[in-house]
Amino acid sequence: MVQSKYLNDLIEAFQLLPGIGKKSAQRLAFHVLKMPKEDIQRFTQALVQAKEKITECTLCGNLSDDTLCSICSNPKRNPKVICVVQEPKDVTIMERIGDYNGYYHVLKGCISPMEGIGPEELNIKSLLERLRDGEVQEVIIATNPNIEGEATAMYLSKIIKPLNIKVTRIAHGLPVGGDLEYADEVTLARALQGRIEI
Amino acid sequence: MVQSKYLNDLIEAFQLLPGIGKKSAQRLAFHVLKMPKEDIQRFTQALVQAKEKITECTLCGNLSDDTLCSICSNPKRNPKVICVVQEPKDVTIMERIGDYNGYYHVLKGCISPMEGIGPEELNIKSLLERLRDGEVQEVIIATNPNIEGEATAMYLSKIIKPLNIKVTRIAHGLPVGGDLEYADEVTLARALQGRIEI
Repeated sequence: MVQSKYLNDLIEAFQLLPGIGKKSAQRLAFHVLKMPKEDIQRFTQALVQAKEKITECTLCGNLSDDTLCSICSNPKRNPKVICVVQEPKDVTIMERIGDYNGYYHVLKGCISPMEGIGPEELNIKSLLERLRDGEVQEVIIATNPNIEGEATAMYLSKIIKPLNIKVTRIAHGLPVGGDLEYADEVTLARALQGRIEI
Repeated sequence: MVQSKYLNDLIEAFQLLPGIGKKSAQRLAFHVLKMPKEDIQRFTQALVQAKEKITECTLCGNLSDDTLCSICSNPKRNPKVICVVQEPKDVTIMERIGDYNGYYHVLKGCISPMEGIGPEELNIKSLLERLRDGEVQEVIIATNPNIEGEATAMYLSKIIKPLNIKVTRIAHGLPVGGDLEYADEVTLARALQGRIEI
C-alpha cells in the first residue's frame, strides 16, 4: 500500500501492461511524477490516438492509419512475393531486417485446436483472393516456429500449392551468435536437415 | 520505422519511461492496441490525475493527496521516532517491511558536491523544526548506502546529536539469501564490523 490514492491508481494502471509487475510499476509511477507536464500530455494523447485512429489495412490486415497500409500502398515493392505472418507486430519485426521487399499478409492468429481457432477464424480468405490474379509467384510463410505456427504453415501450403504458387517457409536453425551447447535437440536436428553448401 | 504514424508516436511515448528501450516500447504499444478502451481511459486518467493532484506533505515532504500525508496524519504511529529517507519512493520501500511504526522525513535528495547539492538544497530545516519540541527521541537515517548517502548521514548526525537525540543508521551487511562468495570487500568488512551476538 502506497501513501497516495492517485499514486496507487497509477501503479495499478501500469500493471495493466505486459511484463510490468508491482515493483516496475512503482518505479515507473514515481518517474511519471517527475516528468514534465508536456511529456505526460504527449503520452496520454499517444495512447488515446493510437487506440482511436489505428485501423486495419483492408488488403493485408496489417495495422494502418488509412484504408491501405504504408506497405500495400507502396508501388515500389515486389508484387511477386507475399510474406504471411501471424500478427501485425511480425510485420514490424520482418521490416526491421531491411532485406525483404515484397508485400505482407497478416493472418491475425494461427490455427490452434486447443483454443478453438480454425482456419475460418483467420484472415485466409482474403489471402486466397490476392493470389487469384496470378501475379504472385511465391508465398513465404513466416508464422512462429512452434506447433501452432507449423500447423498453420502446413495448412496454407496445402491450399496454396494447387494454385501453382511456390510456398516457402523461413528456415529453422541455430540462432546467430548462439552456442551449440545450448541448442535444444529439435532445433539442432532442424539445423542439420536444413544445412547448406558453403 | 513502423507502419503507422500513431503507433510510432505511441512507441516513442513509451520510450520516455525509464528502462523502456525500443523493443519493450514496441511490445507495450502493440499490447495497448489490444487493450479495451476502458483500460486505456483508466490509464490516461491515472497519469493525468497523478500529475495534477499529488502534492507534498507539508510536514515530512512525502508525496500526499492532502496537506498532510496519510502517515503524518495517522495518530497511531510512534511519535518518538523519525526515519529520514532521501526520496518519497523510499517511504514506500520502508513501509513494505511492515515493521516500522514511526514517522518519516523526506530529504528530497542527498548531499552531492559533484552535482552541486549542499545541505541548503535539502529538506533539512523542517526536520530540525520537527525535532525542536523534544518529543522525538531517535532519528533513524535511512539514506542510500553509497558515498552521497553516507555523507548526508554524517552531516545529519553532526547537527542532530547536539539536540540530545539518538541518531542511528540502518545497518550495512550481507543481503539475506546472498552468498559470501559474491559479496564485495567493503560490504563484507561492514558486515564484520556490525556483527551481533547470537
